[in-house]
Amino acid sequence: MNTHLNILQRWLVEQRIDVAFINEPSTIAYLSGYESDPHERILALAVFATGEPFLFTPELEKEDALKSDWSHDVYGYLDNEDPWALIAIHLASRKSDLSSIAIEKDFLTVGRFEKLQSFFPVIPFSDVTPKIQAMKLIKTPDEINKMMEAGKWADRAFEIGFKAIKEGVSEEEIVAEIEYALKKEGIKEMSFETMVLTGVNAASPHGTPGKRRIQLNEFVLFDLGVVYNGYTSDATRTIAFGEPSKQAKEIYDVVLEAYNAALTAVKPGITAGELDKIARDIITKAGYGQYFTHRLGHGLGSSVHEFPSIMQDSDFVIQEGMCFSIEPGIYLPGIAGVRIEDCVVVTKDGCKVFTHTPITYTSI
Amino acid sequence: MNTHLNILQRWLVEQRIDVAFINEPSTIAYLSGYESDPHERILALAVFATGEPFLFTPELEKEDALKSDWSHDVYGYLDNEDPWALIAIHLASRKSDLSSIAIEKDFLTVGRFEKLQSFFPVIPFSDVTPKIQAMKLIKTPDEINKMMEAGKWADRAFEIGFKAIKEGVSEEEIVAEIEYALKKEGIKEMSFETMVLTGVNAASPHGTPGKRRIQLNEFVLFDLGVVYNGYTSDATRTIAFGEPSKQAKEIYDVVLEAYNAALTAVKPGITAGELDKIARDIITKAGYGQYFTHRLGHGLGSSVHEFPSIMQDSDFVIQEGMCFSIEPGIYLPGIAGVRIEDCVVVTKDGCKVFTHTPITYTSI
Repeated sequence: MNTHLNILQRWLVEQRIDVAFINEPSTIAYLSGYESDPHERILALAVFATGEPFLFTPELEKEDALKSDWSHDVYGYLDNEDPWALIAIHLASRKSDLSSIAIEKDFLTVGRFEKLQSFFPVIPFSDVTPKIQAMKLIKTPDEINKMMEAGKWADRAFEIGFKAIKEGVSEEEIVAEIEYALKKEGIKEMSFETMVLTGVNAASPHGTPGKRRIQLNEFVLFDLGVVYNGYTSDATRTIAFGEPSKQAKEIYDVVLEAYNAALTAVKPGITAGELDKIARDIITKAGYGQYFTHRLGHGLGSSVHEFPSIMQDSDFVIQEGMCFSIEPGIYLPGIAGVRIEDCVVVTKDGCKVFTHTPITYTSI
Repeated sequence: MNTHLNILQRWLVEQRIDVAFINEPSTIAYLSGYESDPHERILALAVFATGEPFLFTPELEKEDALKSDWSHDVYGYLDNEDPWALIAIHLASRKSDLSSIAIEKDFLTVGRFEKLQSFFPVIPFSDVTPKIQAMKLIKTPDEINKMMEAGKWADRAFEIGFKAIKEGVSEEEIVAEIEYALKKEGIKEMSFETMVLTGVNAASPHGTPGKRRIQLNEFVLFDLGVVYNGYTSDATRTIAFGEPSKQAKEIYDVVLEAYNAALTAVKPGITAGELDKIARDIITKAGYGQYFTHRLGHGLGSSVHEFPSIMQDSDFVIQEGMCFSIEPGIYLPGIAGVRIEDCVVVTKDGCKVFTHTPITYTSI
């Protein structure tokens, strides 16, 4: 049995919980090695304190699951069968007197939970989410290697994107160029919809690339990431095309200073709130505090947003092996938006970044 | 107030429910016109039996929401604020004596529900999902027009994909060609990860395109769709490259016959189960019943998989204005896989398909 599964199993024994019922696809991949997006169908993994775990998949995925790295049972269900009745039977077949079930409260919907519960009406349901979060929090050397590779692919994406910048090219055309090149080079999936925002559009931190065409003397913001062997990258660069306004350059300098200060401060023992404050204080002191409308960063790994949140007032203590983003930004509506972002892994006495595309002010 | 919002509001009055708390992004877009993927942050829409509805968004999306078609209040929250405490305050500000809340049980997670419930511990929570499903089920002429356009874009995708077929090209290269061309032409989003599977790989109905290269005399299966103005398409074509084996051709003929029989049978009054049976009986009679491992089809609209399920034994009655897929398939492990799929809108006495790329056996 693989290591992640072992750790969860030991926890179940310690907690005297009979079974963990997992149905978040990236957690299933993390624990079982089987990667799948079942859309609206049910994909589940049951891990028992004692007894063999099983995967439960739509019948049309069963062959793929059997061919994957997963070496335990796989049970399928047809579209016209009641998956919850079958899951209840399989759970009971491992342990007829089930007396406690842990579910992923952060993922299982109320509707699905009520169906599961209807078969086990008197059993207490606890939450396995905090344990899964804790497990995912400290990355193994193997996971860090995969994230390093995912980071290199983000650098490759920047390289392609920067080359595509010229006057009159639209945001969505640059997105198309980046994703095309990466897919041709074997990348199956981006971490999220690639974001290329130009000029005033970049003043929306969650904007959508559209038909706006690049004009001379404005910023182009790239926020992108790649999934590599199940692990994600996430990075942002803001590049000057020509000579943006003095104020635009000023906010670049402030964001860069905030980024560098936070990056330099990362080490085991500092809190998430302290890191956020280091960056936020610099931006606030420069007069732009109200335009930094989000937290400093977020954890990432097998999914692009995970625990912990690097945010104001958090007393969460950073430890070696944690991976998260540092991404200060200033968004001046109608003027410009600048964000600089890298993800890091915390080392014994500092951190290493996963992406290496220069962050100094660059004009092309 | 727009029509969808009006219908939901009238239902709340009839059901004597004070407020519907919506947090599925495509349902929020359907009701409010504001499209967003908030990732792990909270995006919510509160619709009241009496009183103004409001959108609740991450602070970093508030500007976008205010600029969207939504003309009512937008409340934001910062990353370090407790969104549930704020939501509770905004709900109570509309109606201080809230006595019933409807939630989307098929979408709201147990964890989020417990947080919401903690602020309203004695209030009954009902399920708004069936009402939303029923509203989405019968499409308006405007929605059908958008789905027709989305269908045309799927035809365009097939055109690009078919042109890219040549010996030695990999599945992922063809995916890259299709998505590149569409993104350059202004498409922002596919309905799902574009699927191009060659030869024996197509025998996995939910396979992932990879490095396998097209060889002469095998099938290439394309399953793809496009999001156009918030509405989706979904279609599958299986194209012969050269001359596949006699058995491969035979399963094509069987799938085509099953598809045509089901398509011809679609009209108001028939049940979902009857449609599935018409196609399944043909495949079973030909000896391939065990290799048709999924339902005949699924509803679609603002999301690519929605109610109803066109499956065995379902007595769900088809009505004019419903939109769903018809997608029989045969998957012979180690040999070949064939699927033919179009989505249709049910008319007064039959149906119209959204995609028009020929379905007759085509060899290139």
